[in-house]
Amino acid sequence: MALTLEALARTLGGRLDGPAPGPTITGIAPITEAGPDQITFLTEVKQVGKHLEELRHSRAAAVIAAEKAGPLPLPAIRFPSAYQGLLAALAYFHPEPPWRPGIHPTAFVDEDATVDPTAMVGPLAVVEAGAVIGPRARIDAQVFVGRGARVGAGAHLYPQVVLREGCRVGDDSIIHSGAVIGSDGFGFHTTAAGHAKIPQVGVVEIGARVEIGANVTIDRATMGCTRVGDGTKIDNLVHLAHNVQVGKDCLIVAQVGLSGSTILEDRVTLAGQVGTVGHVRVGRGTTVAARGVVTEDVPPGQVVSGFPLKPHAEEKRIMLAQRRLPELVRTVHRLEAELARLTEELARLTKDGS
Amino acid sequence: MALTLEALARTLGGRLDGPAPGPTITGIAPITEAGPDQITFLTEVKQVGKHLEELRHSRAAAVIAAEKAGPLPLPAIRFPSAYQGLLAALAYFHPEPPWRPGIHPTAFVDEDATVDPTAMVGPLAVVEAGAVIGPRARIDAQVFVGRGARVGAGAHLYPQVVLREGCRVGDDSIIHSGAVIGSDGFGFHTTAAGHAKIPQVGVVEIGARVEIGANVTIDRATMGCTRVGDGTKIDNLVHLAHNVQVGKDCLIVAQVGLSGSTILEDRVTLAGQVGTVGHVRVGRGTTVAARGVVTEDVPPGQVVSGFPLKPHAEEKRIMLAQRRLPELVRTVHRLEAELARLTEELARLTKDGS
Amino acid sequence: MALTLEALARTLGGRLDGPAPGPTITGIAPITEAGPDQITFLTEVKQVGKHLEELRHSRAAAVIAAEKAGPLPLPAIRFPSAYQGLLAALAYFHPEPPWRPGIHPTAFVDEDATVDPTAMVGPLAVVEAGAVIGPRARIDAQVFVGRGARVGAGAHLYPQVVLREGCRVGDDSIIHSGAVIGSDGFGFHTTAAGHAKIPQVGVVEIGARVEIGANVTIDRATMGCTRVGDGTKIDNLVHLAHNVQVGKDCLIVAQVGLSGSTILEDRVTLAGQVGTVGHVRVGRGTTVAARGVVTEDVPPGQVVSGFPLKPHAEEKRIMLAQRRLPELVRTVHRLEAELARLTEELARLTKDGS
Repeated sequence: MALTLEALARTLGGRLDGPAPGPTITGIAPITEAGPDQITFLTEVKQVGKHLEELRHSRAAAVIAAEKAGPLPLPAIRFPSAYQGLLAALAYFHPEPPWRPGIHPTAFVDEDATVDPTAMVGPLAVVEAGAVIGPRARIDAQVFVGRGARVGAGAHLYPQVVLREGCRVGDDSIIHSGAVIGSDGFGFHTTAAGHAKIPQVGVVEIGARVEIGANVTIDRATMGCTRVGDGTKIDNLVHLAHNVQVGKDCLIVAQVGLSGSTILEDRVTLAGQVGTVGHVRVGRGTTVAARGVVTEDVPPGQVVSGFPLKPHAEEKRIMLAQRRLPELVRTVHRLEAELARLTEELARLTKDGS
Repeated sequence: MALTLEALARTLGGRLDGPAPGPTITGIAPITEAGPDQITFLTEVKQVGKHLEELRHSRAAAVIAAEKAGPLPLPAIRFPSAYQGLLAALAYFHPEPPWRPGIHPTAFVDEDATVDPTAMVGPLAVVEAGAVIGPRARIDAQVFVGRGARVGAGAHLYPQVVLREGCRVGDDSIIHSGAVIGSDGFGFHTTAAGHAKIPQVGVVEIGARVEIGANVTIDRATMGCTRVGDGTKIDNLVHLAHNVQVGKDCLIVAQVGLSGSTILEDRVTLAGQVGTVGHVRVGRGTTVAARGVVTEDVPPGQVVSGFPLKPHAEEKRIMLAQRRLPELVRTVHRLEAELARLTEELARLTKDGS
Repeated sequence: MALTLEALARTLGGRLDGPAPGPTITGIAPITEAGPDQITFLTEVKQVGKHLEELRHSRAAAVIAAEKAGPLPLPAIRFPSAYQGLLAALAYFHPEPPWRPGIHPTAFVDEDATVDPTAMVGPLAVVEAGAVIGPRARIDAQVFVGRGARVGAGAHLYPQVVLREGCRVGDDSIIHSGAVIGSDGFGFHTTAAGHAKIPQVGVVEIGARVEIGANVTIDRATMGCTRVGDGTKIDNLVHLAHNVQVGKDCLIVAQVGLSGSTILEDRVTLAGQVGTVGHVRVGRGTTVAARGVVTEDVPPGQVVSGFPLKPHAEEKRIMLAQRRLPELVRTVHRLEAELARLTEELARLTKDGS
């Protein structure tokens, strides 16, 4: 896979902006880690200023950059979009391992399941009756696909995913290892005798181009659907309770927990370890900062944080003020004492003056 | 499964309170989602007032309700308890898929394990030597049951549960996918040379009618037992450390973490993302609100929250007061200045007057 | 396994400090739980004072203690280090079950994988092409080892661990059930059209003598390595994002989440439910208290807590002050009123005096 810089630029479909043929290139690495036989990358034009100093000291042979990224302190391979160049370089230096369509002989696929001939089912996977695996879908080793579940075209379930009965995964979605899709919602009828289970008869419906992280749990609806919209990306160890409705193109960072029937509109971002109380709605494009707790509905387009939730700028002011709180307590005590003294003095003065 | 409303009421064992025979019914759905060929439900009498407006606008053909729920704005199927009616309707419209007792040919069951002939062991499950699977227990696909572990009568382990060696699950308990019961406790002997492992030789004992959510982790005791009492329900991604003792009929919501040797008495409720420091006891019937951290023992019957933990009403007052903190800082500074000015003025006045 | 106290002391390699031969001993248990046929233990000399009262009331036949632990209120088995005695007693009363090296006939091991003849591969495990399993390594039931992954000598992967392609586990490390090592990092290129995946082509490298808890997730690096240093111990349900670098002999307690590129130097302790924002460095030997959020770099040797992070002592002062906040608000209002009255009075006095 080693080529001169010039040949590499040509292979990737970019334009070499620097002396040809350049050194032999063997890989790609971040700006501060790349060596003289590696290239590096700048994925966003606005990053140029931020990383200029790092680029000056980089040992990389060249940088993948956008045509419009301006002059750079080292040779570049230019693309209409740097992201396009990065994808091409990653695909060149880190090709996907080949995989063969077909059902591995150690997998158990029920005779009443349907697996597209272009799909792959890996070693020791289980596909139960009535399940449907779409074209080019990849069901890795030890995955479980329950009765009547559906996996869309090109979707990829990594080793040891659990997709429970009746749940659906859209086209080109990716589910990482250990994720459980369709576990029962946490619903009980509580009386003096204890907590009686309310059967959870709904399903989970995952849209297209969704990515779901490792060991995520998404509960099936009590009735109806728990939904994750197209293009949404969910990080590891996130919990979605029954009947949650997540819109399109949301970002949900690690260890977030969404209580029952939470609604996220499109393009919502929840940073790490955020929680929501049940039955709240977060408006389109809103961002909840790390550790925030969504205690009520949030309108679209906000940046909010804290517990209870408030505008992020206000939360930051409160955080700053808290550091002065112990001093404030002392100040107020001093003021109380001074005021008492003053009041006394004034009383004396008034008496004297009278 | 479609019947007239009248025939459905008879089939479910309820009493039709409305015009017979009524429309043909095909399913059950929540009040705001049910269509004209569906029924809906009101599980608690006290919900009637709360949902009356929704019921008025519901498109449902009828509502399952308690006999004593009072007059309703649409036809009803009445039961002594609405919950009983809901269970009957769910069982009618969403029957459990049939399952056959027996050991799937692809499962690996050690010849020294004991599986009751009425139990089921699913595809690619593992049951190791000395393990005992009780009558009507259901061990789903790819479950692991370790050496000498015991699964009670009627218990259900969903796909990919891990029940480590020597651990026990009581009758009719349910464990969801990805839960790990009996992993080693986090116990080390720390010296200048590092952290040496303290072997964790205890077990986990899960009572009867317990439900444990997806990807929950319950560590085995260092010695003795980590215990979860009868009737307790645990949501997804909860962590119970070694030697935790959970009482009966507790509710532990998602992403809670209990440190080593935490004791919950019976009927404790921990809301989402609560944590406890080690060796604390939470009294019978106490509720800890979301995100609270149990920093010390809590008496029975309390409602507590915050970090450190305090009475919930106090925590709410503090949360309100915090929003006024930045303003308070400014006010105190203003008071300081005014007081200084006043003191000066008074001094001048005293001097003038003297 | 029952011996007299005298014979047990000899078998364990300790010195009986008490009347011989003593009673027959059948096991070991904590101080408050041990019965008259059991021994108990005191692992640290400094614990003696703390547990003296408990020892006085213990029903144990004897206590394992250090030679230098001083006089004790019951018979003792003395060792140069009590920890050494505890290990010997645990190994005697709770011997590891025997395991046979070799590949279980139900496992799937690719013909291009290398498994050392002294290693064990359990039932229904999967070892893919190019993977290398070292001497005496133990791959339990249903584990997944991906293409080209490496497991060091004496390492132990418990049932249902996932070790993704190319990732490495060092000698004598332990990984608990449900842990996922090498899932994709959460990296996207966001445009108006949505979030496009940045392929995650790096790996995870786990050092020697590391322990990783149940259902932990460790993401592979975008490029390069996510690293966990030798001797580090990680509790359950912890999340390590892509490119995190954890030093040696760290302790990471349950439910901690480390954002991308977080650096922990050696011997850092993170208590339960701590979080870090991305790209921060925590200095050698620093402890972050439970629930803290690391919002910026922390120097070595600190004890810090809170959100934002501050010295632990300061955070405790703030927590105390917060409980007085509602009262403080009232006090300040009172002071405002008094000051206004005083100002008015003084103005009148000045006017009168003028």
